[in-house]
Amino acid sequence: MAPKETPASANAPPLLDLTIDNITPNAIRINSQSSDARLTYLMARLVTHLHDFARETRLSTDEWMAAIRFLIACGHISDDVRNEFILLSDVLGLSLLVDNINHPKPPLGTEGSVLGPFHTHDAPVLPNGSSMTTDPAGEPMLAVCTVKDTRGQPVAGVKVDIWETDSSGHYDVQHDDREGASERCIMMSDESGRFWFQGLKPVSYAIPHDGPVGKLLGKLSRHPWRPAHVHFMFEKEGWDHLITALYLRGDPYETSDAVFGVKQSLVLDLDKVDKETADKYGVKEGIWLLRYDFVLTTREETEKLRDELATEALEKLGLNLKLVDHLPVPDLD
Amino acid sequence: MAPKETPASANAPPLLDLTIDNITPNAIRINSQSSDARLTYLMARLVTHLHDFARETRLSTDEWMAAIRFLIACGHISDDVRNEFILLSDVLGLSLLVDNINHPKPPLGTEGSVLGPFHTHDAPVLPNGSSMTTDPAGEPMLAVCTVKDTRGQPVAGVKVDIWETDSSGHYDVQHDDREGASERCIMMSDESGRFWFQGLKPVSYAIPHDGPVGKLLGKLSRHPWRPAHVHFMFEKEGWDHLITALYLRGDPYETSDAVFGVKQSLVLDLDKVDKETADKYGVKEGIWLLRYDFVLTTREETEKLRDELATEALEKLGLNLKLVDHLPVPDLD
Repeated sequence: MAPKETPASANAPPLLDLTIDNITPNAIRINSQSSDARLTYLMARLVTHLHDFARETRLSTDEWMAAIRFLIACGHISDDVRNEFILLSDVLGLSLLVDNINHPKPPLGTEGSVLGPFHTHDAPVLPNGSSMTTDPAGEPMLAVCTVKDTRGQPVAGVKVDIWETDSSGHYDVQHDDREGASERCIMMSDESGRFWFQGLKPVSYAIPHDGPVGKLLGKLSRHPWRPAHVHFMFEKEGWDHLITALYLRGDPYETSDAVFGVKQSLVLDLDKVDKETADKYGVKEGIWLLRYDFVLTTREETEKLRDELATEALEKLGLNLKLVDHLPVPDLD
Repeated sequence: MAPKETPASANAPPLLDLTIDNITPNAIRINSQSSDARLTYLMARLVTHLHDFARETRLSTDEWMAAIRFLIACGHISDDVRNEFILLSDVLGLSLLVDNINHPKPPLGTEGSVLGPFHTHDAPVLPNGSSMTTDPAGEPMLAVCTVKDTRGQPVAGVKVDIWETDSSGHYDVQHDDREGASERCIMMSDESGRFWFQGLKPVSYAIPHDGPVGKLLGKLSRHPWRPAHVHFMFEKEGWDHLITALYLRGDPYETSDAVFGVKQSLVLDLDKVDKETADKYGVKEGIWLLRYDFVLTTREETEKLRDELATEALEKLGLNLKLVDHLPVPDLD
């Protein structure tokens, strides 16, 4: 239909005769009309990198169309319980990078790891000591953990979200007949900063690789395996949100995690539960025992560190930027 | 399930303790295990730009999640007749750039323009002089065109794919009750390189903006309009595939096309059909008349020019690259 409204073109920078060499500044200009300085900056960097990628690779029309088809396929396979784009971000190392940028840790703080696509919001809140597994085939494991601050003081009342696969290497949401949460729970740290629960000794598993991301890994001669791990997420007002995982030493995929999540400080050896511990926690002697002391940092500590690292990185870039709400925007003053 | 196969990790470069500063070379290394040198190069540049984007913007976790949701939404709204990722590529200037890289034109060749998401494969082959429109509400237009080579010689037997919107500014595929192709056809150039058909005077129209790409344009204070145009695609063995469009001068969106397609050499004024022309082509006197002489380049000319431009651009980049099948790959010799 013919334009009824006043053409916005009156205010837009004029475009014409766009070429390989001038498309980028023109696209940035037309994307810079909003009053949202952060969005303007994000779009400017996005367009610059996207265009540079095409120019540096002399991207062919066939390759461009293959990329379009790949993205469509990622969208079509995604649903409420599967997110192929998070998986893509994970295997490209972007998820790990974004976590590290947003949650830098001082030397004493527990390091972060990738969230992955399998966290849910329906895990039951269980009292300390509960079992979060319904899988009789797995190897039982008792986990006894603490949450402290960087000065070694216990942090009570932390909401700890815990999830792992069953013994077949699948999260509950990967089973078509899922009836509810399993191998996942939420615990609260007690007055001594402790929390403990029964789960399964984690197993190595392949990330979902029946979709486009799996096909990409195949073309890259990469395997889809993750080393055995248990996910943990810590939340408490005033404290930096910590998403991490603990990994078992000696796993065949310890140094080739498909999603780049392993850090040496998060790799541990399991023990066996002795008689005293078995009696204390009401579990069978001889089952696996995981012990770990998590260290949380305050939101203030983290924001200060993040701002310092951001300022340092942006100075190196030589772009004229300032931080607003802890995020860089162009400094036009 | 526990890994049954021999872990591929034996051959993979070891990863551990990945940080903001070392994730990129590590991701490139693990993506470099296939024997496909072109894929390796594409992935290396992709990962470099993706990671640099996150580092330069200090991408926040919320922004990353918003991007994931945006991509999912683009996938979910896409179907057989709607491709939101092509639309996204169009509004970011990537489509124009990829076309320019792949189909560089010598000074005399007709310039290309964006394909857009509305080309179909079911357009009827019509004899010269036919009408391709079934819309009684539009303003009738006779188009009389020629196809020549860069020396001015006619090119016969070229398959010319032509498509435009109806008078409401919608392509046939945008109507839910579409019964078949309309406002689109395929013609063959005759012995004199001529082809002619009846269509509609094109109208300005908004690209589909009820989806995530439309929302993005809104956030960017950009309008979704394209200036009035007719699409043309030329195919003949031995000749460079030409995707282009002709635009009407004076359109309110002439200098602010939402998808960056306008080039001055493709902008024209319509005439009116005089009595002589009306009699010759069997149309009514006084309807709109479009005349244009297209110039095709041979595949050989285009490939030579593309290789020259690629070599020049890669030398500027300072990367050690060579062209294989006209596409850059790292030169390891």
